[in-house]
Amino acid sequence: MVKVAIVGASGYTGVELLRLLHAHPSVEITCVTSRQNAGEDIAAVFPSLQGAITQVCDAVDVELVCAKADFVFTALPHQTAMAVVPSFLQAGKRVVDLSADYRLRDVAVYEQWYQAHTSPELLAEAVYGLPEINREQIVTARLVANPGCYPTSVALALKPLLEKNLVDTSTLVADAKSGTSGAGRSAKLGSLFCEVNEGFKAYGVANHRHTPEIEQTLSQVAGAPIRLTFTPHLLPINRGILSTCYGQLQAALSAADLHQLYRDTYAAEPFVRVLPDGVYPNVAYVRGSNFCDLNLAVDARTGRVIVMAAIDNLVKGAAGQALQNMNLMLGFEEGLGLGQLPLFP
Amino acid sequence: MVKVAIVGASGYTGVELLRLLHAHPSVEITCVTSRQNAGEDIAAVFPSLQGAITQVCDAVDVELVCAKADFVFTALPHQTAMAVVPSFLQAGKRVVDLSADYRLRDVAVYEQWYQAHTSPELLAEAVYGLPEINREQIVTARLVANPGCYPTSVALALKPLLEKNLVDTSTLVADAKSGTSGAGRSAKLGSLFCEVNEGFKAYGVANHRHTPEIEQTLSQVAGAPIRLTFTPHLLPINRGILSTCYGQLQAALSAADLHQLYRDTYAAEPFVRVLPDGVYPNVAYVRGSNFCDLNLAVDARTGRVIVMAAIDNLVKGAAGQALQNMNLMLGFEEGLGLGQLPLFP
Amino acid sequence: MVKVAIVGASGYTGVELLRLLHAHPSVEITCVTSRQNAGEDIAAVFPSLQGAITQVCDAVDVELVCAKADFVFTALPHQTAMAVVPSFLQAGKRVVDLSADYRLRDVAVYEQWYQAHTSPELLAEAVYGLPEINREQIVTARLVANPGCYPTSVALALKPLLEKNLVDTSTLVADAKSGTSGAGRSAKLGSLFCEVNEGFKAYGVANHRHTPEIEQTLSQVAGAPIRLTFTPHLLPINRGILSTCYGQLQAALSAADLHQLYRDTYAAEPFVRVLPDGVYPNVAYVRGSNFCDLNLAVDARTGRVIVMAAIDNLVKGAAGQALQNMNLMLGFEEGLGLGQLPLFP
Amino acid sequence: MVKVAIVGASGYTGVELLRLLHAHPSVEITCVTSRQNAGEDIAAVFPSLQGAITQVCDAVDVELVCAKADFVFTALPHQTAMAVVPSFLQAGKRVVDLSADYRLRDVAVYEQWYQAHTSPELLAEAVYGLPEINREQIVTARLVANPGCYPTSVALALKPLLEKNLVDTSTLVADAKSGTSGAGRSAKLGSLFCEVNEGFKAYGVANHRHTPEIEQTLSQVAGAPIRLTFTPHLLPINRGILSTCYGQLQAALSAADLHQLYRDTYAAEPFVRVLPDGVYPNVAYVRGSNFCDLNLAVDARTGRVIVMAAIDNLVKGAAGQALQNMNLMLGFEEGLGLGQLPLFP
Repeated sequence: MVKVAIVGASGYTGVELLRLLHAHPSVEITCVTSRQNAGEDIAAVFPSLQGAITQVCDAVDVELVCAKADFVFTALPHQTAMAVVPSFLQAGKRVVDLSADYRLRDVAVYEQWYQAHTSPELLAEAVYGLPEINREQIVTARLVANPGCYPTSVALALKPLLEKNLVDTSTLVADAKSGTSGAGRSAKLGSLFCEVNEGFKAYGVANHRHTPEIEQTLSQVAGAPIRLTFTPHLLPINRGILSTCYGQLQAALSAADLHQLYRDTYAAEPFVRVLPDGVYPNVAYVRGSNFCDLNLAVDARTGRVIVMAAIDNLVKGAAGQALQNMNLMLGFEEGLGLGQLPLFP
Repeated sequence: MVKVAIVGASGYTGVELLRLLHAHPSVEITCVTSRQNAGEDIAAVFPSLQGAITQVCDAVDVELVCAKADFVFTALPHQTAMAVVPSFLQAGKRVVDLSADYRLRDVAVYEQWYQAHTSPELLAEAVYGLPEINREQIVTARLVANPGCYPTSVALALKPLLEKNLVDTSTLVADAKSGTSGAGRSAKLGSLFCEVNEGFKAYGVANHRHTPEIEQTLSQVAGAPIRLTFTPHLLPINRGILSTCYGQLQAALSAADLHQLYRDTYAAEPFVRVLPDGVYPNVAYVRGSNFCDLNLAVDARTGRVIVMAAIDNLVKGAAGQALQNMNLMLGFEEGLGLGQLPLFP
Repeated sequence: MVKVAIVGASGYTGVELLRLLHAHPSVEITCVTSRQNAGEDIAAVFPSLQGAITQVCDAVDVELVCAKADFVFTALPHQTAMAVVPSFLQAGKRVVDLSADYRLRDVAVYEQWYQAHTSPELLAEAVYGLPEINREQIVTARLVANPGCYPTSVALALKPLLEKNLVDTSTLVADAKSGTSGAGRSAKLGSLFCEVNEGFKAYGVANHRHTPEIEQTLSQVAGAPIRLTFTPHLLPINRGILSTCYGQLQAALSAADLHQLYRDTYAAEPFVRVLPDGVYPNVAYVRGSNFCDLNLAVDARTGRVIVMAAIDNLVKGAAGQALQNMNLMLGFEEGLGLGQLPLFP
Repeated sequence: MVKVAIVGASGYTGVELLRLLHAHPSVEITCVTSRQNAGEDIAAVFPSLQGAITQVCDAVDVELVCAKADFVFTALPHQTAMAVVPSFLQAGKRVVDLSADYRLRDVAVYEQWYQAHTSPELLAEAVYGLPEINREQIVTARLVANPGCYPTSVALALKPLLEKNLVDTSTLVADAKSGTSGAGRSAKLGSLFCEVNEGFKAYGVANHRHTPEIEQTLSQVAGAPIRLTFTPHLLPINRGILSTCYGQLQAALSAADLHQLYRDTYAAEPFVRVLPDGVYPNVAYVRGSNFCDLNLAVDARTGRVIVMAAIDNLVKGAAGQALQNMNLMLGFEEGLGLGQLPLFP
């Protein structure tokens, strides 16, 4: 049994990590931390855990965490994460960091979209933890930067097209919609039930911080620099991201051709489902699971391809992918503890 | 008092017409019809109307309707509408038809996307009832084809850009999201609460019937044929459409320039609100009202403009716009009976 | 035109007062105040008001309010309300106070459930503003204490039974469920979308502050002291209260008898709808309106009557009833400005 | 590996059985049937199952099912279930029937609330499958009648009080609220998204068919005949039941006393969680799990106890409890395959 710590357990990503790790046969949760809930039973913070998880929240104390655990998940806000991650590494722990702090390889890009970086020396070493793209590097990584939710969905949607150079990369648009758990568990006016429910709007238009992360991954896949327009929207649901991606095809390809390409590309992937022809991804069909569902259509009238990707933002978009990365790093079967089927309805 | 009939009153558009007409000071609802609820009190069909509207549903009988009313709203499915609209006109009634049957001017296009047309001779006469574009023709029309919900939002979103020839019209994408009332009130598996709630998906990708209608209006505005990619999605809310529209700018225009253009274009329009800088349209802020809220952003990195439009699909996208058209046709003040503010939250 | 002020306009009750007063033909909104949004356009606080209401929020300054307005609505939290209401009265203004501060006639009861009262001398004068019970006193009142949302629904549900002494008053239970707007617009963890959505729970069980208010009204109606068990629950919807009330019948009465009693009792009431036999109140059918919908069933097996009442907590449960009270106080037709039909769906 | 069949797999209970059985280490799903989807892949019926469950739906053919499986779950409507259950038993299969057909021991009561019974001879043998009450009999049963969702919640809520004779049984009221999946997956007007969403109402008031089932269980527990008033309501959520139960205490007991009684009663139960003092059951905290969460309050002012029970209607209220019963019948550990934590948020 590997002893794992969740640093920053009182957010939605934290509770989802707890839910998933509880179902994992080869790990034991030996430490959970929370600044604001230190001293409280984590099951008092999240009554869903009553009777199953009995950890008391520690303060965020690196020595304590290192004494209690062998493997560390940091589920902290950006900037807070990089204040502790280097210490865990120095103490010999392997880390999956769920913040944005180690996702961008170019410190200048990071500092343009976020703020000053306090451990830029780790950026070259950190592996961007999208197994469908970087599986081999993840296996041996000390530090895995767990991808953002939107970037995961857009990268998996566009990878097959970009690898084969099938779209004009100057025409890419990703129109993405996320459930409200993506906004976190802090008490903000804009996240109140009555502000979100029965509403729908875009936010962060043309300036959302996931843009450079998406572009970094797409550029890696395409082997050339890519810029796209990315527009996130807030959905009045708890969980789920649907990204609808557009690009101009370089040649007159049929939907059948592209469908086959997608099936081939992801044939060996345990968590990517290319849906049957005509069945479009729905966030309701991946809820609670680590699946990314994909499908596409060709608008022959305009020569455009439309690719849709659905994930659960808390699972494949956060905690599930973190667990998948941990499995790879520790030599477990990649899907261990992630076999739960989606909860529908 | 003008006597009005609602033919096909038992759908969501029907009940919304009843709600709005009830608040109109110069009309009297003298006839409501419903095939499936004939003989029932309309307030039994919609208990929200209890104590306020006491009409009994008639069967759809043209003579009866003509005897009871001077002005007719047809809120029937396409194909069913064109079975009765010509008779109303022959009887000397003026009609606002909320179906798709008279929206497309080219019968070949109609028949390609729908089915054979039984009164193509009326297509040249019918006026497409988007007051912000065709106000003058509406005033004198016998037959107004009330626009579809999606087309209303996309047309108002893109009109200023197209009139000024500011975007490359080969790059237009409209990613639209609609509340579930747009799917109508028929008992279908896909419209069940548990199938829609906490879900989100695209549908009709690259083949939705509103595509040619959108293109017809945009082409009229631009003065040149336009094709776009239009992707509708189903939102787990009752009411509201948000359309996010993308296009490549022909020149390096700032958001401030474009914002001013939008304000100028719609300065005199009573139902179009160009929101202040940075406040993005939210369907929650137009609920129950006839407003179309607009705003935009420029993605300077890619040279793209993103325009967002929010309407209530049952009001500006259907019944409210129908009432606005009636006001124009009858010489009433355009906003009469449409002054209710949005219901928030 | 009467000049009215809304003191405390930045909550959900405030915006609802604005919506309703905007539709009132004989009043003009001349002052809105908000501590936290002073200096801001109220339409920036609530974009739903864009283009329609242009007031800038004042700080809560009694002299300023008195200079600007003739009639005052106070939509402040309890304790904050009683800090300003006496001053408005001294300045000769008539006031509808939407807080709990003047609802309880017995200062000891108030101080047991809330905190010390700073103007207990006004309690004898204040009129409890439930028109269906106290219409005559409201007409001449200087200060109307606008009822709470739950108490309105329970009082209207039980009034006919208690007036006729038909139930054993020791057996009364009110199981009530409220939409989340009832929790206000402050940024609290428990009001976040993801905490409320897809959830349902009771709160304030056996100790909610509306209990003594409900009991005061029921006791007045029954002419004898009444205690009941009141259990509120939080519904994952924006608006609406449904109260399901139980009591043991004193005699073997039929549902038909009781239904007739309810219709007779409320025959002249413009805002109480006793629904047809078998149609049960649904919050969806009163949304946005000032209606209270009622119906009942008799459980002959146990000798119990079950009465259900549905209101929109922001309208008949707050702002709409406040407007109804204002109409009575100012000699307007009681329903003026309240004629909007419910928004369904 | 035990081979199991799900007869009637195309409803919400069916898909939930598939989800749970898929996670069970000692069973294999070898047969799924569906009248309306015969010949279709079950993953086409429920895309959530894509890539994980590959069964094709058979027609409901008893011989075929018997040839394919050793253990049978019947998830059919009442009346349809009893058309096939006897045949499965005759073929030597053990059956968990999720319909109402074998829940009531008295055929006269069944026929009063449902319709004629075609295999009344099985009623004496069938065991009512509520493990917290009938665990021993379940172990050896051939036919287990899986309890209804509402009855499960009410029985677990009231058992401790009734066993100890602490409440006046003539005063029991159960006010229950269920998510919409409880209404099934058939395409009915009343189950449409726009009819349910943002709505809330009671239904089946004083005549719901779960009443005699609840009374049978409570009477068994109390050792005396019990009648109660039961009022179900429809919640605009997918999953979950909260039952709020009221009774007059026979003596002045404190909440602390009763809380201790509940903890003692359920100390050994793996799926009943008596929540800490002051934490009230919330359907969001049991979602997707087999837990029943309980808590209570005492209204000292009226001498009444209020007990709240939350379950997921599709899990502890249907498929999860069926699996729990199967585990008992087959000698597996009772919680096998049911260890998934609730999905929050």
